[in-house]
Amino acid sequence: MQRAAALVRRGCCPRTPGPWGRSQSSAAAEASAVLKVRPERSRRERILTLESMNPQVKAVEYAVRGPIVLKAGEIELELQRGIKKPFTEVIRANIGDAQAMGQQPITFLRQVMALCTYPNLLDSPSFPEDAKKRARRILQACGGNSLGSVEPCAGSGDKAVASPAEVIYMFRMCMTPRRMDETGSYSASQGVNCIREDVAAYITRRDGGVPADPDNIYLTTGASDGISTILKILVSGGGKSRTGVMIPIPQYPLYSAVISELDAIQVNYYLDEDNCWALNVNELRRAVQEAKDHCDPKVLCIINPGNPTGQVQSRKCIEDVIHFAWEEKLFLLADEVYQDNVYSPDCRFHSFKKVLYEMGPEYSSNVELASFHSTSKGYMGECGYRGGYMEVINLHPEIKGQLVKLLSVRLCPPVSGQAAMDIVVNPPVPGEESFEQFHREKESVLGNLAKKAKLTEDLFNQVPGIHCNPLQGAMYAFPRIFIPSKAVEAAQAHKMAPDMFYCMKLLEETGICVVPGSGFGQREGTYHFRMTILPPVEKLKTVLQKVKDFHIKFLEKYA
Amino acid sequence: MQRAAALVRRGCCPRTPGPWGRSQSSAAAEASAVLKVRPERSRRERILTLESMNPQVKAVEYAVRGPIVLKAGEIELELQRGIKKPFTEVIRANIGDAQAMGQQPITFLRQVMALCTYPNLLDSPSFPEDAKKRARRILQACGGNSLGSVEPCAGSGDKAVASPAEVIYMFRMCMTPRRMDETGSYSASQGVNCIREDVAAYITRRDGGVPADPDNIYLTTGASDGISTILKILVSGGGKSRTGVMIPIPQYPLYSAVISELDAIQVNYYLDEDNCWALNVNELRRAVQEAKDHCDPKVLCIINPGNPTGQVQSRKCIEDVIHFAWEEKLFLLADEVYQDNVYSPDCRFHSFKKVLYEMGPEYSSNVELASFHSTSKGYMGECGYRGGYMEVINLHPEIKGQLVKLLSVRLCPPVSGQAAMDIVVNPPVPGEESFEQFHREKESVLGNLAKKAKLTEDLFNQVPGIHCNPLQGAMYAFPRIFIPSKAVEAAQAHKMAPDMFYCMKLLEETGICVVPGSGFGQREGTYHFRMTILPPVEKLKTVLQKVKDFHIKFLEKYA
Repeated sequence: MQRAAALVRRGCCPRTPGPWGRSQSSAAAEASAVLKVRPERSRRERILTLESMNPQVKAVEYAVRGPIVLKAGEIELELQRGIKKPFTEVIRANIGDAQAMGQQPITFLRQVMALCTYPNLLDSPSFPEDAKKRARRILQACGGNSLGSVEPCAGSGDKAVASPAEVIYMFRMCMTPRRMDETGSYSASQGVNCIREDVAAYITRRDGGVPADPDNIYLTTGASDGISTILKILVSGGGKSRTGVMIPIPQYPLYSAVISELDAIQVNYYLDEDNCWALNVNELRRAVQEAKDHCDPKVLCIINPGNPTGQVQSRKCIEDVIHFAWEEKLFLLADEVYQDNVYSPDCRFHSFKKVLYEMGPEYSSNVELASFHSTSKGYMGECGYRGGYMEVINLHPEIKGQLVKLLSVRLCPPVSGQAAMDIVVNPPVPGEESFEQFHREKESVLGNLAKKAKLTEDLFNQVPGIHCNPLQGAMYAFPRIFIPSKAVEAAQAHKMAPDMFYCMKLLEETGICVVPGSGFGQREGTYHFRMTILPPVEKLKTVLQKVKDFHIKFLEKYA
Repeated sequence: MQRAAALVRRGCCPRTPGPWGRSQSSAAAEASAVLKVRPERSRRERILTLESMNPQVKAVEYAVRGPIVLKAGEIELELQRGIKKPFTEVIRANIGDAQAMGQQPITFLRQVMALCTYPNLLDSPSFPEDAKKRARRILQACGGNSLGSVEPCAGSGDKAVASPAEVIYMFRMCMTPRRMDETGSYSASQGVNCIREDVAAYITRRDGGVPADPDNIYLTTGASDGISTILKILVSGGGKSRTGVMIPIPQYPLYSAVISELDAIQVNYYLDEDNCWALNVNELRRAVQEAKDHCDPKVLCIINPGNPTGQVQSRKCIEDVIHFAWEEKLFLLADEVYQDNVYSPDCRFHSFKKVLYEMGPEYSSNVELASFHSTSKGYMGECGYRGGYMEVINLHPEIKGQLVKLLSVRLCPPVSGQAAMDIVVNPPVPGEESFEQFHREKESVLGNLAKKAKLTEDLFNQVPGIHCNPLQGAMYAFPRIFIPSKAVEAAQAHKMAPDMFYCMKLLEETGICVVPGSGFGQREGTYHFRMTILPPVEKLKTVLQKVKDFHIKFLEKYA
């Protein structure tokens, strides 16, 4: 009766208390009948609403999957329903998802993954020996030399508080002789030991011998997970002491989203569009000085090669950035997920880690750096496995312990993603059975991307009112578009950013889905969009031609 | 020179400015030599330290992988190095990781996963047809009926702002005829459409026909991801309006960790140990009333079957809890990852969703509920794939949009984990080729667990000073242990919680690794530990005998 009374107190229809739903009083049955006619009357105010929810989450924006993608979905549904459009399909050039655009997976990678998934296949003659060798190594994990990484790295003097035991923990789990299906167990929170060793060996090779310590490698659920985890640890303080995080504008919107979630302060530095989107250290200086008035700038994020801007930083530029971080005491985050995606013959990828070490011990033993890689980009495009790693340099040993603790709350990154990462860092080598096919597939993907990067730049620059910087790397064009003032007014009338208005029109008239520059940030009064270069060459040509035709018509309409 | 000057200003050794590391002045070389002798001199203060880091992250505790696990790792290393111990191996009974304890994966699940990973295997005669059928369905994803879930669920009236387009987005991606390798692409942020349909069908079957809407299903990176995501959205307010989250004590420490990360207020309600760890609604009332003095209690978390306590809630208890949530306007979180793990013949799993619907429309159209499931537990024990789902009931349509936005920042859950979840909810049925083997494997795992649950309860209760409630479900025993006051004093002298002291001694003397009750929470003055029942039967018997011998010796020593 207490319950019924409570119900009455709240102005709700009293109902027979328990067993609810199995027997109802006639009053309740009546009420229920009413509810069926006017179901909205039965609704009490919700607990979780836009007003009551976490305001930081509400403030998050993520354009790559935002309103334009929703509109694309609606249009596709209309096409499915037979509604006539000036086009027959929507072309998704909004997200860097290579395999969704028809890119074939690397055979060797999938073979090893299948073997790890279903070890019975290790007896099958239809899998090459080198794939089986990789799979056995991953399955048996730590092989014979897993203890190597438990020894302190020569010269570093640091040991993670938590790490050796975690390593050993994994070691034990994998050494249990009957276990041949590790992908089904949790791994160590930091990731499978032998995969972290392979990552360290890869980094060492990549960086011309600069040593990498497996103990500094953390396997992650895609690069996004690593970036948000390290930012989560870095953010602190209140008021003017709140952590400021410097990010490039244009940026990849994961950064602004995580900064918003964490209630940190976003500090923008602008890339130099007139100079192929180069990073200018004077602009970093301006940004950090201005930020000091209202926050504590503590983190500097770099995306190289750039997303959405596609520039590849010169070695000199990286040196300047590292020196700046040293000088201003900034923690460096180097997003290097496009390290294999460099197309311009004048450009080369230089890792922040390598340059840091080459700058000498004053830098290499002081500047705190986290760098990120992923299975989703490069030539493999394995987005679905959510594989990635983070390498940390000069992280305080106590913070390493904190990091492992934080990661262990989510238990571990997906083990299949870890295995995919292993193949990326430990591919077939000359002399191995699969080398030729692997090499052919890899070169074909990267060669095609290079071709498409050039094609996109050239064709965009033939359009009046579009300017496109060279696509030196990554997977996107970020052309600047001229939007006439009449179109800006029309956009304002629709309560849209002008480039959102432009992209919506482009989508509605051509079926091409790109992301407005405002989703990434751009200098006031300039307009851009981001388009992937992932469609197959012939389709990409059609896309570019359609954009051209649309743009000319758009200029005429709003002249 | 500007840089060198800056270096000098900071009292550091001046070094020839760029190109650093390629040429060095003799002064720099000298400094470098000094650095090698006294490397600590080269260290500037770190940016990221225990003092400067995010204090909420620092406050996180996670006992399941905490100090006791680190100690276990150290001991294993010592055993590896030949150091003599009173035992020859460490037995990891600290974490619910079935396959790490030798449980074999379910063959059918791994077959489908391998087929999805490497679709060439679809031509192989060594895979059964029903596995191929499942794999083809996942690979081609949306088949013919994917549009079903885009229609509003009858009677709900709600549509997620973002969801239909996301569904269609996935639909398009999967329908592209050439694509047979979707596991390589990002999925929709909410998860692959047809897998969400299979989850909804599973829930409907499980709940005796209570309808489930695929649009309410969110695939997640293990259950942990879903729990922390929904909590992240729920937490708001400052001071006395800060969101209070009610959790059981003892709890699974993911909850306290996420609450700490989010700076929410943890509101403890105690399970009734004297009554088989039952949840008593009067205790909920006490907890919520007291909490209202200092926060805004908005969320009620339930773990059923219980972790670490293993109780299975009665239907009556669930009704009471739902009524309480209705009355107090609390958002319900039902952690139901052990729904397949019920051993006691007197107990049955009742889902919160089902009971909610059976209580009638006043409840079923008002109480906001999120429930969670996972591939890691049950009979499959697929921890490494990080598969899981969340079903939301009565979530505000605007909040659904917010949820998809938040999830899309991390792009998508691992697609292989999504595929694993699909097999769990869509297993072979009678008449299918793989049914018999699947059924045999499943029953063998669950039968063994039931046997071990009983064995553990019985053997613990034979030990003086240990009391163990029946293990009605889940995978753990959480026995209460008597710790003599002399041992409590000894623990205090070591600055350890008494049960941590006990577990450390147990580990050091027997090699058995269990987690102290203090890591889960327990009533003041009571002591417990959590032990998994996953070791094979014979090994489990040995473990229990060793604990018994240790406990008797411990009592004698500290009498």
